[in-house]
Amino acid sequence: MKLVIAKSSGFCFGVKRAMDMALDAAKKYPKPLYTLGPLIHNPQAVEFIDQLGIKVRDRIGQISKGTVIFRSHGVSLDDFRMAREKRLLILDATCPIVKRAQVQAKYLHRHGYSVLIVGDAEHPEVEAIRSYLGKDVAVVDDARAVNQLGPWKKLGVIAQTTQSQSLFKEVIACSMEKAKEVRVFNTICQATTIRQREAIEIARKVDCMVVVGGYNSGNTQRLAAICKEIQPHTHQIETSRELNLRWFSRKEKVGLTAGASTPHWIIQEVESEIRGLKG
Amino acid sequence: MKLVIAKSSGFCFGVKRAMDMALDAAKKYPKPLYTLGPLIHNPQAVEFIDQLGIKVRDRIGQISKGTVIFRSHGVSLDDFRMAREKRLLILDATCPIVKRAQVQAKYLHRHGYSVLIVGDAEHPEVEAIRSYLGKDVAVVDDARAVNQLGPWKKLGVIAQTTQSQSLFKEVIACSMEKAKEVRVFNTICQATTIRQREAIEIARKVDCMVVVGGYNSGNTQRLAAICKEIQPHTHQIETSRELNLRWFSRKEKVGLTAGASTPHWIIQEVESEIRGLKG
Repeated sequence: MKLVIAKSSGFCFGVKRAMDMALDAAKKYPKPLYTLGPLIHNPQAVEFIDQLGIKVRDRIGQISKGTVIFRSHGVSLDDFRMAREKRLLILDATCPIVKRAQVQAKYLHRHGYSVLIVGDAEHPEVEAIRSYLGKDVAVVDDARAVNQLGPWKKLGVIAQTTQSQSLFKEVIACSMEKAKEVRVFNTICQATTIRQREAIEIARKVDCMVVVGGYNSGNTQRLAAICKEIQPHTHQIETSRELNLRWFSRKEKVGLTAGASTPHWIIQEVESEIRGLKG
Repeated sequence: MKLVIAKSSGFCFGVKRAMDMALDAAKKYPKPLYTLGPLIHNPQAVEFIDQLGIKVRDRIGQISKGTVIFRSHGVSLDDFRMAREKRLLILDATCPIVKRAQVQAKYLHRHGYSVLIVGDAEHPEVEAIRSYLGKDVAVVDDARAVNQLGPWKKLGVIAQTTQSQSLFKEVIACSMEKAKEVRVFNTICQATTIRQREAIEIARKVDCMVVVGGYNSGNTQRLAAICKEIQPHTHQIETSRELNLRWFSRKEKVGLTAGASTPHWIIQEVESEIRGLKG
């Protein structure tokens, strides 16, 4: 059995940066230390920083002193204001690419555009972006949903940074006919696009595909969904413990990729486990 | 045999306006009277105004005095300047919708966007728009052509006013991945979209489709092409003389539409000719 590992698997720049900031904060910043929501969408990585004394709190109301680390997905306007009112020390680990998407969405809003966000309305990144935009904003995760919206004079469109380019394109195409002007900032993270493209290439060549990453990780879920469309024998797992021997019986080539928030050590465990099965 | 006539066939607002301006000029404006290129893309209508004393000249160099009427498709920056230098009386019959496309293209150019025009590079409307934009401009009439272009930091996209929405959408979708920002002004004329939609609906229901309009008329050609994709028995004609009895043998339902520059009297002739065949 041959194992094909995606070069682009694992921590992206924004996740690595957030983890480094947290590790640094554990040493140097005033305690108690908190993240507002999980720092990144990987339970094992979150558990690791929890052991360094950084605790997850879901709401800013649960934090009264010390340091708050803003998660890689960004924070809402309300949370930002409350953190300042409470005079907490703020360490902003928002991914710079997410930050840019926030800035561009605000720019569109300030310049009179109705804003359309292509993404998952429940995802904290989208919730945070949306919080800066007032009421004239909609979120869609399906091109058909556009039929229920508009018409618009000036429509601004951005995407959740980990969305697929193909959905983004479809939504733009559908909104075109319903707007006089459409202004699009392509906020999709390049690393996401490269990772998805490489996963597609690998999925086309293998008999079985393993995608490693948090079940709460949007980009990992999409990676798995994209692979499954091409190779039905695609399995998402969080850790090597979930590997199932039967998946690999009579398979000649197995592909392996991982989401942007999946730590290297987990990918390596999965890799050696699969290689072990071979012998 | 039943004849289904498109409600949207014939002169659009911009063509009617240009024709009215020419008829008015024939009475009131200083002679000699010229149009720079054909006023509209219909040889019979052009012949009609020729008989009122309005002559077609292809280049501004061929006109030394009197009145020049700018055609409905607009004029290039050079022609506009030369007409002013020659102190000709200018009557601008540029369609206001084409004018708006020019203004929006210039706006994009002035604000640092590379401009992409979706249209026919040889069409006078596109040639005119392009003349105002300097060098950072490209024209495509096929979405695949976008693969050869870019990448862009800021891309502005407009369309020739009589283009099909579907090509426009395809081009936008293809350019999305190659640009950080895409700003689209939907310059396609509403009348064109409505006419194309109605033609599609009729073509789906009939056994044979007749499209009336100038062979040099871009919007008529596209109308015929769109109908032909749905109903292979589609025929474009300029006048009733070209009707062929054999087209209608054993046909129960015939559809009839016409381009935006096709005079009412020509459509009526075609209509009565087809109805005559029936008896």
